[in-house]
Amino acid sequence: MSPGAAGAFAFTLEATDGHARAGVWRLPHGDVTTPCFMPVGTHGTVRALAPSDLAAIDARIVLANTYHLHLRPGEDVVSGLGGLHAFMGWQRPILTDSGGFQVFSLEGMRTVTEEGVRFRSHIDGSERFLSPERAVEIQWALGADVAMAFDHVIPGRSGRAEAEDALERTQRWLVRCRTRHEELARTSRLAPRTQSLLPILQGATFPDLRRQALQGILDAGEWRGLAVGGLSVGEPKPEMRAVLEDLAAVLPAALPRYLMGVGFPEDVVAAVALGMDLADCVAPTRMGRNGTAFTDGGPVNIRNARFRTDRAPLDADCDCETCRTFSRGYLRHLFAAEELLGLRLLSLHNVRYLVRLVARARDAVLAGSFAAWSREWLARYTHRESS
Amino acid sequence: MSPGAAGAFAFTLEATDGHARAGVWRLPHGDVTTPCFMPVGTHGTVRALAPSDLAAIDARIVLANTYHLHLRPGEDVVSGLGGLHAFMGWQRPILTDSGGFQVFSLEGMRTVTEEGVRFRSHIDGSERFLSPERAVEIQWALGADVAMAFDHVIPGRSGRAEAEDALERTQRWLVRCRTRHEELARTSRLAPRTQSLLPILQGATFPDLRRQALQGILDAGEWRGLAVGGLSVGEPKPEMRAVLEDLAAVLPAALPRYLMGVGFPEDVVAAVALGMDLADCVAPTRMGRNGTAFTDGGPVNIRNARFRTDRAPLDADCDCETCRTFSRGYLRHLFAAEELLGLRLLSLHNVRYLVRLVARARDAVLAGSFAAWSREWLARYTHRESS
Repeated sequence: MSPGAAGAFAFTLEATDGHARAGVWRLPHGDVTTPCFMPVGTHGTVRALAPSDLAAIDARIVLANTYHLHLRPGEDVVSGLGGLHAFMGWQRPILTDSGGFQVFSLEGMRTVTEEGVRFRSHIDGSERFLSPERAVEIQWALGADVAMAFDHVIPGRSGRAEAEDALERTQRWLVRCRTRHEELARTSRLAPRTQSLLPILQGATFPDLRRQALQGILDAGEWRGLAVGGLSVGEPKPEMRAVLEDLAAVLPAALPRYLMGVGFPEDVVAAVALGMDLADCVAPTRMGRNGTAFTDGGPVNIRNARFRTDRAPLDADCDCETCRTFSRGYLRHLFAAEELLGLRLLSLHNVRYLVRLVARARDAVLAGSFAAWSREWLARYTHRESS
Repeated sequence: MSPGAAGAFAFTLEATDGHARAGVWRLPHGDVTTPCFMPVGTHGTVRALAPSDLAAIDARIVLANTYHLHLRPGEDVVSGLGGLHAFMGWQRPILTDSGGFQVFSLEGMRTVTEEGVRFRSHIDGSERFLSPERAVEIQWALGADVAMAFDHVIPGRSGRAEAEDALERTQRWLVRCRTRHEELARTSRLAPRTQSLLPILQGATFPDLRRQALQGILDAGEWRGLAVGGLSVGEPKPEMRAVLEDLAAVLPAALPRYLMGVGFPEDVVAAVALGMDLADCVAPTRMGRNGTAFTDGGPVNIRNARFRTDRAPLDADCDCETCRTFSRGYLRHLFAAEELLGLRLLSLHNVRYLVRLVARARDAVLAGSFAAWSREWLARYTHRESS
């Protein structure tokens, strides 16, 4: 964090209802009410959507990918163009991941040492190197509100030995990330940065490792928030929920909690129920581009022939431009004719659906009725899922 | 035209300056100030743009394709969904072409008789038939403000015999189109339609055939406008200009004149100089998707490496969302990363560029300075074209 930024990352917990929480996270580029869903802008753009769309549907914070932006156009270019907010034309908060998840996904193209990860660019095959220090430096240059620590990510169904090894390395890397981040805050000659660095809690699906990791993070210093990583990476869903349930009892209440990579509606509601405040996923935009729309009655595939002459909106409960303007029949036509507008309109609706979903969850927490609300929502959502 | 529609298609010529004209064409869904550029929505969507985008950049009228909408989703579906305006979510005027241009472009897949054109769908190979009556019926069902007569289109460099033959057929077909259109206006059980049918002037690049075609059209009855077809289809540009120059002296001043298929900036300005009021083309959206942006300094390809770190807007003179929000460096990045948003942002700018260009031409006509304005514009536009 840069000097003078005290208070810029204050998190206020407004209410709890069971494990579920409602709060406000103050970030340099604006307030994020929680629970919050964060759409993913991999290359500095939430696919098919303009920042004006995202503002219109009240998205509060967007995630951008350090790995992708480092490779193309490069953090020097983004910095030279005024930093990520100016680059993307998005003046609300931005969070960057550390690139860890991406480089550890490059099977067979990477070498991991204690120093860092050597890998080849998926774009041009050039050799690259990411370390805790480099990941922090790149994110500093990009200039997001929130940066993530560089962690050692392992597959979802890894064994205990592998999980322990990765966890210990993540812990050592966290200290290096923090040291470098504090140095940058003191010495950087870039335009003033007010950036918070968040640790990532690993430990796979082993409750004791998760608790040990949490202790390590809390021992390493004060933090402005905490991310839960290494979930939603292929493990069975009950295992993910068990980990979150166990963590709910021990996570510090005062910190906002970010569950990484979770974004299907049912998973987001489950995460909120287990005390998570923030989640991100490409699901709404990716599903939208495939023609699948989220609705309270479950996912709907607009390519289905039964929508050919359907005058109804995609989702009668939704207030997005797609649902206010077009019929299902027209949206189906756009997908049949492979028109670009279809990709955009369903992406817009799906992100709006998740933004509204967490806003409704928040209202329920504030009203003390979260359990009933989420039960009713889930019954309706899953009832028609298979139809 | 349906009963009671008197005045709904009034064209008011406000000023002339040389051959160039400024006017207002009143259509059922709104006024079209002329000269006007009409973006093309082939499948009932201007590619990559939403109707809200088109309204924001002040597009006044959109073209949709009868051939494409007949094949998919079918005019019955469009009609059942409330007609083309409701279908597309566009409440301003719409013009539909007759499908003639498309079916005559299907080399080797069509048979032309006096009755009409038998052809195979490019989508599923099914056999289809379009005739003057069918083309008018389909357009009636679609419900555009302006429908086009079904004409016999020939390649741009056809010989005189072929041109004469097509012209005579077009003339006979025009009478059949009109008869059917008048029947529909009297008998249709569809929701009330207020639609005007426009004849298309053919005659290739033979001035005497063009004049003969004009006489035939005027002899066939009263019209609310007149289209010039068969140009911009491969003939040398000087030949197109010679035809327009010759026609400028003989076209009735009281009718709006629509030059079909013209849409590169230099061609639009030349068409306005020769007395045309309306033009359409896919060029702005197609070029935009290729990364080419129209500017007063000539076309710019945003993929060029020199824009990598360019903080300037795409076109400093432009007021569109693209130019108000993003740097050239970011737009280049979107194309390098093959992001959908790039296609949309350059399409939006290019359509706005043409809408602004004709608005500037209109202002010059009203000020009596069109010749000087167009000379200066062209000098600047072509000066840097090769850079």
